[in-house]
Amino acid sequence: MIRFEDPASFAQALAELPEPDAPALDAARARQADLTKPAGSLGRLEDIAVFMAGWQRRERPRADRIRAAIFAGNHGVATRGVSAYPPEVTAQMVANFHAGGAAINALTAACGAELAIVALDLDRPTGDIACRPAMSEAECLAALNAGAAAVSDESDLALLGEMGIGNTTPAAALAAQVFGGSAQDWVGRGTGLDEAGLARKAEAVTAALALHGPYCNGAFETLRRLGGREIAAMAGAALAARHLRVPVLLDGFITCAAMAPLLADNPRFLAHCLAGHCSAEAGHVRLLERFGLDPLLHLGMRLGEGSGAAVAAQIVRSALAAHGGMATFAEAAVAGAA
Amino acid sequence: MIRFEDPASFAQALAELPEPDAPALDAARARQADLTKPAGSLGRLEDIAVFMAGWQRRERPRADRIRAAIFAGNHGVATRGVSAYPPEVTAQMVANFHAGGAAINALTAACGAELAIVALDLDRPTGDIACRPAMSEAECLAALNAGAAAVSDESDLALLGEMGIGNTTPAAALAAQVFGGSAQDWVGRGTGLDEAGLARKAEAVTAALALHGPYCNGAFETLRRLGGREIAAMAGAALAARHLRVPVLLDGFITCAAMAPLLADNPRFLAHCLAGHCSAEAGHVRLLERFGLDPLLHLGMRLGEGSGAAVAAQIVRSALAAHGGMATFAEAAVAGAA
Repeated sequence: MIRFEDPASFAQALAELPEPDAPALDAARARQADLTKPAGSLGRLEDIAVFMAGWQRRERPRADRIRAAIFAGNHGVATRGVSAYPPEVTAQMVANFHAGGAAINALTAACGAELAIVALDLDRPTGDIACRPAMSEAECLAALNAGAAAVSDESDLALLGEMGIGNTTPAAALAAQVFGGSAQDWVGRGTGLDEAGLARKAEAVTAALALHGPYCNGAFETLRRLGGREIAAMAGAALAARHLRVPVLLDGFITCAAMAPLLADNPRFLAHCLAGHCSAEAGHVRLLERFGLDPLLHLGMRLGEGSGAAVAAQIVRSALAAHGGMATFAEAAVAGAA
Repeated sequence: MIRFEDPASFAQALAELPEPDAPALDAARARQADLTKPAGSLGRLEDIAVFMAGWQRRERPRADRIRAAIFAGNHGVATRGVSAYPPEVTAQMVANFHAGGAAINALTAACGAELAIVALDLDRPTGDIACRPAMSEAECLAALNAGAAAVSDESDLALLGEMGIGNTTPAAALAAQVFGGSAQDWVGRGTGLDEAGLARKAEAVTAALALHGPYCNGAFETLRRLGGREIAAMAGAALAARHLRVPVLLDGFITCAAMAPLLADNPRFLAHCLAGHCSAEAGHVRLLERFGLDPLLHLGMRLGEGSGAAVAAQIVRSALAAHGGMATFAEAAVAGAA
């Protein structure tokens, strides 16, 4: 298990990233060229299979053991009316996850994934980022480690997602801090905010950027000041997954915003990540462009909870089924192209 | 089972299309509004669930029994060098399907679909459309009925796909005949054709349109003159599915081209169809635009065999899992939006 002892060891883990296994990448590419289909005709399914091979270090990667880790947190900034829903809904939805009634329960069941729900101090919202840091150093470290602890080195693939009323506000602040632009460039309607709510949200983000911007030197401090517990947990989970060589399927805007500060410190950070989908939250497409990630799905989803990643996991399963299960031209006695 | 006795009964079946069940559509929409998520936040997954409800005539539609029907045929026009592969590959790939080694075997297994392979007189290629009709009236009727016979009213969803060396040539001819434009507008590289092959293909399509265009009055005659056995079979399967109220997931360019003559005769024909994906074959995106269908996936696939539809079936499964499995706000005691 990966554990970050202090901010320095987190920074060191982020600086020293393992890379995919070159022989496995080569073997998977060679296999793709031999399968009974015109070269390249499975499009992105072929790329996915090769990507998975590199991280799993085997020619025929698997998607038998998928774990979705969904983190929940509450946000001080939610009291500013930046969400269409009251903060109590975070805990109510966590109860719904445990009872099996949420979208993520149905969607992980559909793709055969195990579901780990990690609720992070829901009765202690983070500081209101518009006027103070979200977390203390100890709180941020605890959240990063809660994320890291949720990743298993026995997983073939990790899905990351979140629940937290108000959390598109810190997500927008993180995106603006890392990639620049105004609050307006990054705030959106979240779960269905009205015009006045959207203005309050932009105001909160603007205030947070003005207050914390000058002190956001490095991923840890940026997450601590502008993030939230579930956001730091997703960042910690993704970094731990990298060291365990577990490929990651990212969910929507908030999940991606959690990755942004880490990418700013190490441009290779997202090499083990696939973007599951492009959500309807306006900032998400911009983040994915900055990341250079082409999302697997465009289905207009905007729920969070890892829901987009869980649907995208079906595409990964199909890609690996074709890669692992098809016959080669020689095995099937099929003629090649002229 | 649906059977077309003659061209007139085929035309009548196409003229008298059943529509989705309005009470089931209403009930499914009402259920979506009650589930524990912000309204609309599952995006297209919600639309898919409502669509499936309408055709299955139940509030909670199922995707337990999916049948992929893959039709294979050979084409006289293939002798003109319009494919990168020799015509023998059609039969070799059918053998590969039966042996379980093709992409469609792996992809149907991944989505839990049953696979029906229907090879249509592979030792008797159709007439070369550049100088004669593809089929006689009896041959075209037999192909339509072979398609209809492959659809079961016990299926929750039908996937349609094809295999046939050279069949993007008749597909381009059908698309051009129905929607206008030159041969160049509709021909593409298929399985990987070179520049000279592409020119031969455009020439064949131009000749076919000049020869048959004036006589293509109605879907049957258009399919008979410009199509092929597997193409007519897909058209017959889709029309039979409509009468059995089985929703259909279309595969790529050739599958869609098979639908075009039927859509020309009845603008409501595609109401029971979803476009599984947008393939890399250039004509496909144009056909989908003419159809007004937004494909579920954009993965750059261009294999055929129903492969894109089989991957898209995973999205339908996820959509129905969420629709059927989630709790309502009342069941889960979660607060709604302010």
